Amino acid sequence: MGAKIDHLGVAVPSLAEGRALYERLLGFEVEFEEEVETEKVRVCGLAAGDSTIELLEPTDPSSAIAKALEKRGPGLHHIAIEVSGIDELLPRLKAAGVRLIDEVPRPGSRGTKVAFVHPKGALGVLVELVEHPAR
Amino acid sequence: MGAKIDHLGVAVPSLAEGRALYERLLGFEVEFEEEVETEKVRVCGLAAGDSTIELLEPTDPSSAIAKALEKRGPGLHHIAIEVSGIDELLPRLKAAGVRLIDEVPRPGSRGTKVAFVHPKGALGVLVELVEHPAR
Repeated sequence: MGAKIDHLGVAVPSLAEGRALYERLLGFEVEFEEEVETEKVRVCGLAAGDSTIELLEPTDPSSAIAKALEKRGPGLHHIAIEVSGIDELLPRLKAAGVRLIDEVPRPGSRGTKVAFVHPKGALGVLVELVEHPAR
Repeated sequence: MGAKIDHLGVAVPSLAEGRALYERLLGFEVEFEEEVETEKVRVCGLAAGDSTIELLEPTDPSSAIAKALEKRGPGLHHIAIEVSGIDELLPRLKAAGVRLIDEVPRPGSRGTKVAFVHPKGALGVLVELVEHPAR
């Protein structure tokens, strides 16, 4: 099957500030910029090989990203791993003792199914599992 | 130019335990396993698209990974970003106010040049910049 890193989600106070470091200094190329209303963030996607770095700017103080910035400042917010068969995977993870935030997948953007694993369950950071629709 | 995620470095108490989660449950495929004596770790590289997840097991209590496990438990230890022109990049990062651990690159494995950026300078986690030798 083979899994991959779908994207790294990085909380930034402003996309302009984030792009100053990641685009202009580190050389990542901008792929898209969009607003995700349900998450109350503006996203700037930077091409990182076959993966993406998503800079996330809160559009509202109630957004999870606004809270993360308040608590911990800018930086890595979550790592998204692309998997297949997420419906079967989640019960297997649970049975193996991995602590899950979502025991059943929920709809993500662009037809994906997503589920979050608790930081204590995986990398010590928030992990998002993403299954893309069949292409 | 275009940068990419070279690898994620993940501290684990044992490669067997790490592989139980990443290989058997999440579906990453093992690419290599090797000991890096200078870093006092055994490394298991998992293919993650055009990137790699490196599971890092300490081979000695004095290893940085042993200390990370003691302090924070298993989990993400560093994110390595592949860049080009690292010799010119480091002074530009410094001039832009990014806090660096290494102001000049040092030799990494397989002919690479590497430099670490302080967690406060970038993602809130340790960032390794890696330049591969011309291929």
